[in-house]
Amino acid sequence: MADFSITPKTRLKRKPDRGHYDRATVYQIIDQALICHVGFVVGTQPFVIPTLHARQGDRLLLHGSPGSRLIQHIQAGHPISVSIALLDGFVLAKTVLNHSMNYRSVVLFGAGQAVTGYEEKLAALECLTEHLAPGRWQQARQPDGKDLNSTAVVAMDIIEASAKIRTGEPKDDPDFQGLDVWAGVVPIITSLGKPEPAAYCLRSTPFPDLMKYIRG
Amino acid sequence: MADFSITPKTRLKRKPDRGHYDRATVYQIIDQALICHVGFVVGTQPFVIPTLHARQGDRLLLHGSPGSRLIQHIQAGHPISVSIALLDGFVLAKTVLNHSMNYRSVVLFGAGQAVTGYEEKLAALECLTEHLAPGRWQQARQPDGKDLNSTAVVAMDIIEASAKIRTGEPKDDPDFQGLDVWAGVVPIITSLGKPEPAAYCLRSTPFPDLMKYIRG
Repeated sequence: MADFSITPKTRLKRKPDRGHYDRATVYQIIDQALICHVGFVVGTQPFVIPTLHARQGDRLLLHGSPGSRLIQHIQAGHPISVSIALLDGFVLAKTVLNHSMNYRSVVLFGAGQAVTGYEEKLAALECLTEHLAPGRWQQARQPDGKDLNSTAVVAMDIIEASAKIRTGEPKDDPDFQGLDVWAGVVPIITSLGKPEPAAYCLRSTPFPDLMKYIRG
Repeated sequence: MADFSITPKTRLKRKPDRGHYDRATVYQIIDQALICHVGFVVGTQPFVIPTLHARQGDRLLLHGSPGSRLIQHIQAGHPISVSIALLDGFVLAKTVLNHSMNYRSVVLFGAGQAVTGYEEKLAALECLTEHLAPGRWQQARQPDGKDLNSTAVVAMDIIEASAKIRTGEPKDDPDFQGLDVWAGVVPIITSLGKPEPAAYCLRSTPFPDLMKYIRG
């Protein structure tokens, strides 16, 4: 897989050692995140909206109501920016201003288009469903033609992309490493609670596999 | 506390029952989130950047390098949009297209300005530090005048704001509630892992209180 080209928009000016432009790193972060934040502009006004996403090969899929501002804006081909962030830990230093987070983030720039063909749209919805809850596409009731009309899907080719990652311990100035304050990393763990069946769910098979979201 | 006015930008067109405009609800979500995603526009290009934040009364604080694109843009007074999202659970339905997430999100619109006065900037950095790790401002080494110059702080008055919240079980069409597929909510839990002291951290007192981030 070819690396992404570094562009004026994706080049890290500060802490360039945290930048990653290889496709595997970028895709791994996209795939592990449940949601992204999509930025778009109306007039001169920026909007940012959190939404579910999925990666289908080299493109990012989003979906929503055909009437949603975000979907309509993307369908019109306007430029968007997509931000994804996974928080891995608190970085606590002996000096206040050296506190940080360990994280993995991705930023994408591009423009999307509507996914309209029946087979292509069905495949995109399968991809979005499987991203959220692997196995569900086969387990649950799949959409029919009428359902498809009530949901809009858009796709953006992943061309301009970068990742930014911080790992490891805090960086304190040697002068202050001897201070009597705890310094280190406190990992953030994501896990799943006890499933709560819906009132109308009398039987409980099959249950989806959400293990990929467990982190830390 | 007065509710936020509903504006064309914050009014929920779809699923208006998920909208909340009371200050307590909006502030609770801001305070429980570790990071926000800030959207801004350069020319016609949208950017979205994840960053730490803190609420200081009725304003939102951000900080960063004085040379960062985000900070410079906010200092120049351009409009920004801030998005915050907390994921609370997977909502699994018997029909694929009824799958969802339980979440609490906030969107803010406004413009920021630099926080430059010595005392005001110090108080802002204390607020940002205490948001990240309560107790650290007193525990760790506080910034001196030189440190203050190496960090920029910006503030945005929280005037145009709304929250969007989904809770509870999936909504399946009665026709399909009898399908033999598990439906319900799987809570997402955030917790902390075993602290990993830095190599230069020979002693371990005092340790910060991060319990407020444990959710689910």
